[in-house]
Amino acid sequence: MKKIALLGATGSIGINSVDVATAYPDKFKIVSLTFHSNSEKGAALIEQLKPQYVGVGSEEMRTMLAARFPDVKFGVGEEGLIKAATLEDVDVVLTAVTGSVGLKPTMAAIERGKDIALANKETLVMAGKWVMEAAQKYNVSILPVDSEHSAIFQCLNTQEKGNLKELVITASGGSFRDLNRDELEFVTLEEALKHPNWSMGKKITIDSSTMMNKGLEVIEAHWLFGIDYDRIKVVLHKESIVHSMIVLKDGAYLAQLGPSDMREPIQYALTYPNRLPIKDEKSFDLTKIGQLNFEPMDFERFPMLELAFTVGKKGGGYPTVYNAANEIAANAFLEGKISYLQIEELVLKAVQNYTEANEVTLEEVIEIDKQTRTIVERWIKEEG
Amino acid sequence: MKKIALLGATGSIGINSVDVATAYPDKFKIVSLTFHSNSEKGAALIEQLKPQYVGVGSEEMRTMLAARFPDVKFGVGEEGLIKAATLEDVDVVLTAVTGSVGLKPTMAAIERGKDIALANKETLVMAGKWVMEAAQKYNVSILPVDSEHSAIFQCLNTQEKGNLKELVITASGGSFRDLNRDELEFVTLEEALKHPNWSMGKKITIDSSTMMNKGLEVIEAHWLFGIDYDRIKVVLHKESIVHSMIVLKDGAYLAQLGPSDMREPIQYALTYPNRLPIKDEKSFDLTKIGQLNFEPMDFERFPMLELAFTVGKKGGGYPTVYNAANEIAANAFLEGKISYLQIEELVLKAVQNYTEANEVTLEEVIEIDKQTRTIVERWIKEEG
Repeated sequence: MKKIALLGATGSIGINSVDVATAYPDKFKIVSLTFHSNSEKGAALIEQLKPQYVGVGSEEMRTMLAARFPDVKFGVGEEGLIKAATLEDVDVVLTAVTGSVGLKPTMAAIERGKDIALANKETLVMAGKWVMEAAQKYNVSILPVDSEHSAIFQCLNTQEKGNLKELVITASGGSFRDLNRDELEFVTLEEALKHPNWSMGKKITIDSSTMMNKGLEVIEAHWLFGIDYDRIKVVLHKESIVHSMIVLKDGAYLAQLGPSDMREPIQYALTYPNRLPIKDEKSFDLTKIGQLNFEPMDFERFPMLELAFTVGKKGGGYPTVYNAANEIAANAFLEGKISYLQIEELVLKAVQNYTEANEVTLEEVIEIDKQTRTIVERWIKEEG
Repeated sequence: MKKIALLGATGSIGINSVDVATAYPDKFKIVSLTFHSNSEKGAALIEQLKPQYVGVGSEEMRTMLAARFPDVKFGVGEEGLIKAATLEDVDVVLTAVTGSVGLKPTMAAIERGKDIALANKETLVMAGKWVMEAAQKYNVSILPVDSEHSAIFQCLNTQEKGNLKELVITASGGSFRDLNRDELEFVTLEEALKHPNWSMGKKITIDSSTMMNKGLEVIEAHWLFGIDYDRIKVVLHKESIVHSMIVLKDGAYLAQLGPSDMREPIQYALTYPNRLPIKDEKSFDLTKIGQLNFEPMDFERFPMLELAFTVGKKGGGYPTVYNAANEIAANAFLEGKISYLQIEELVLKAVQNYTEANEVTLEEVIEIDKQTRTIVERWIKEEG
């Protein structure tokens, strides 16, 4: 029986994770969970899963839910996340929260010897160096949940690690893949939220369209697989069937393919190195799909992807600035405060505004994250 | 230094194997080789590789070559093949001969503890049971060289063996993939020899067009990977870029991709579990290829493929009859003795003519092979 802490239980990955865990009640038990603001869905999950511990987003929510569920312990905010992740019983922490809040509970869990099923990109983008060092020190596994990284992880068995030449991350191109840059000026929020292949949360859908999401994945892959940026390629693959590939020393490619169903990478992170059937599996027939297309990725069309390689190579606080600026900008776009193209402008401006090229500490990274948010928020107010 | 016996050195796989071995003279040494009839190419190889032992097809050839190469030992026919394969120094036997002659030297090599890099399909088609049993008994590896089986082998690392659901073998469709059955009546030998993707020997090119080659691969895969016929699928993939795939319990596919270059699977069989760069690697860019197509395989269009599953499931001597009839028929077509569609007719007639459903011994299989050849040769004479 694998005991799971599920951070971010009411989001898209969270809900899929609950599906996976409850499909095999003899194999998985969610012993703690957290959610930020969706108290209705959250309460339903507490009812269904009967966890020992629940972290919530506010004191009010804690008071309300504690009255309703007297047998459950509750915590609030960062403290609640950390407590949920480090509970004695927990074997593996599934970090399905969005944004930089994932970092501290992940580090705390690693230090307590918990394996990490990582769906929170920002953790490695901000603190890949420390997270991977700590994982090695405390002998825990970092198991990727992103479909791209899971695909690479599935191809890259022990035997192939020494034979790796390149990673090829596939990108669907997002909602606006068929628009040129001039056409982007007039796009609406509603259009931006229509992802061609995946049904995901709003913020990640925006990030897919700006290619910020792919940029974060590039940086995540760099840390997760310990590979130079020059050996990470991105190709446009509109069907999202090939989830990613590896290229080996002899030129052979290994690819992982399948339907667009997040339950597969989530479940694999929990069952690794074994596999189990996905309950009510989506039908998948390559001969019905018929055709897979691959195109080069255009850095001029998607400047945020090029910027990911730039900030990744610069290192230090740069990836943190890149991510934090985007978190604020993408949310501002979701709230109707800025236009679509302003997301890119703000991220680029924040990166150009940041000049500390020196080595940074983990504490400084957290500070850089805060400062960047404050600066970008100010810029949005000034412009608005 | 890995010491190699190369059986069938002057054929298409043989020549590619020489390229692979000589690209890394510090890692590989061909210590013995055989060829059947191409004495000019064979002599050049002896000159180049300076093997200890050479097996040739006839006494005349032996006499001629022994005079020219006094330091080399020679043998003739089956004896020469067996001696080349079992030489004291040999670590791995690369069986690149075509047809059922590959069986006896392969068995002899296994019994002497040599690993087998297997490019000879017929060995497993005829005697998969005994070959795999012997490999286990003598603790030798059977390393596939066919691009399809190598692809599966590359995807199917130790960890995935228990997680395997299905194999998906890809088929280019061969020279006549765009013709319907009526159009096949008028095809010529010249047209049959134009394979769309691979440059191979004549017999295997014909076998690709009749889908006999794929049928033999299905039976080979059954034995090599120990998987039921119901869990082996074949899909039409015209580009021959995805060399084959595996489907795992959770619905994930792993695929191996790459250029149509036999040096890759040959080299992998020799370097496994490691990999080395292919010398003068063919350029390969998925975004230049652009599109990969997958279509269902039509058993009515390709009755020899359906027949492979039938004879495979029946077992016993059936696969041997299927293969032996085709060897005679395909060669008769190559010699202009029969029409293209008569290949299929003769194979089907031979299978229908065979009625011994009981268990057979290895000795009986060899006898069934001989008898089938005699019968099919007689039918060709009678009809001609």
